[in-house]
Amino acid sequence: MKKMDLLYEGKAKKVYRTEDENLYIVSYKDDATAFNGLKKGTINEKGSINNRVSNHLMKLLESKGVPTHLVEEINDRETIVKKVEIVPLEVIVRNIAAGSLSKRLGLEEGSKLRRTVLEYCYKNDDLGDPMVNEYHILALDLATEEELKKIAELSFKINEILTDYLKEVNIELIDFKLEFGRTPQGEIILADEISPDTCRFWDSNTKEKLDKDRFRRDLGNVEGAYQEILRRLIGE
Amino acid sequence: MKKMDLLYEGKAKKVYRTEDENLYIVSYKDDATAFNGLKKGTINEKGSINNRVSNHLMKLLESKGVPTHLVEEINDRETIVKKVEIVPLEVIVRNIAAGSLSKRLGLEEGSKLRRTVLEYCYKNDDLGDPMVNEYHILALDLATEEELKKIAELSFKINEILTDYLKEVNIELIDFKLEFGRTPQGEIILADEISPDTCRFWDSNTKEKLDKDRFRRDLGNVEGAYQEILRRLIGE
Repeated sequence: MKKMDLLYEGKAKKVYRTEDENLYIVSYKDDATAFNGLKKGTINEKGSINNRVSNHLMKLLESKGVPTHLVEEINDRETIVKKVEIVPLEVIVRNIAAGSLSKRLGLEEGSKLRRTVLEYCYKNDDLGDPMVNEYHILALDLATEEELKKIAELSFKINEILTDYLKEVNIELIDFKLEFGRTPQGEIILADEISPDTCRFWDSNTKEKLDKDRFRRDLGNVEGAYQEILRRLIGE
Repeated sequence: MKKMDLLYEGKAKKVYRTEDENLYIVSYKDDATAFNGLKKGTINEKGSINNRVSNHLMKLLESKGVPTHLVEEINDRETIVKKVEIVPLEVIVRNIAAGSLSKRLGLEEGSKLRRTVLEYCYKNDDLGDPMVNEYHILALDLATEEELKKIAELSFKINEILTDYLKEVNIELIDFKLEFGRTPQGEIILADEISPDTCRFWDSNTKEKLDKDRFRRDLGNVEGAYQEILRRLIGE
């Protein structure tokens, strides 16, 4: 399968059409951004690590009954995915308080939440991806009531599967961001990526950060952290 | 019934204990603040107008089956209310986009929402009353699942009653803020106030603002707007 015209270039990925109108090719970049694009940089090998990590985790999820956009990894950096219409929501799943939640609600980073928290942000760069609740989502027609129910149900299921799986390789899943898409048949499936760019991964014992917070917060050894995740998950 | 010791002084009201441990006396002030206390001023007669407007609307709600904290107005500025433990949430009910919602979601002020929107803010001055969703509320134990369900149900019912009632006096109910309390018996009842301080009231025809936005936005004739609301509701 060959890449045809570039459909979309985002901060971390390019998406190309293919000769099959139902399939796209995603190409992962090494570019890194944070704080809605205010901070920019490059993380060596990030594109190929995120591509492989994300495909590895999506395969796991598929095997447990979660529908995803994954079709086939074609090289280190590129993957064939199903064409979907992205639901314009970032779904954030939180097990432990960290980042913006800690700041907004005055919770110490690392404190366990009594319950898993879902947050929705409206994907809109001009507005700075504002947080929305289910009433906003329905009033703005960003998703239907049925879609929202499915998105929440899948998000909790994904959290359970990933939390259990990562525990075995000594990684604590603090929080992560998901995006979902609608297939032409109207099914809601997991899209985008699951990687150190979109998750907070902490070493279970040392609580060392093994994710994009090393870039956001200038903690050093960013590449090393991404490689460590790849090593623990895939053994490379 | 006599005021005893001052229990609490807020931005717009004082609350006193009484000789009856189940009753408080609320005393409304003329002080006005906006933007989480950054803007300060005085609105002549505001205390007595808000007291009378709020009691008038709470009586209406009671007559339609909404439980409220109202017991008895004892003078222009003071009212006996039931003792409750305030649920630390501001519940915002929105029919028309305005204020912070317009800004955050890029919706033109005055545009009708496809559905009524409920928003919750965590009442916490130090944190600036951050917006929270139902997952945050349960994770922080601000209310139970049953309480939250009751709060949403009452909020929608209050919105219907007030919208219909205000339409008859040519006022459009754009949005408003509610607070609820727990009685010693564990019942959820409406507390706080319903007034031009806590609602956006627009003249149905001219769309003139008849509420605290005149103070927030330096639109002039603030007292006149509050008096106009009193006049339309109570005829004084």
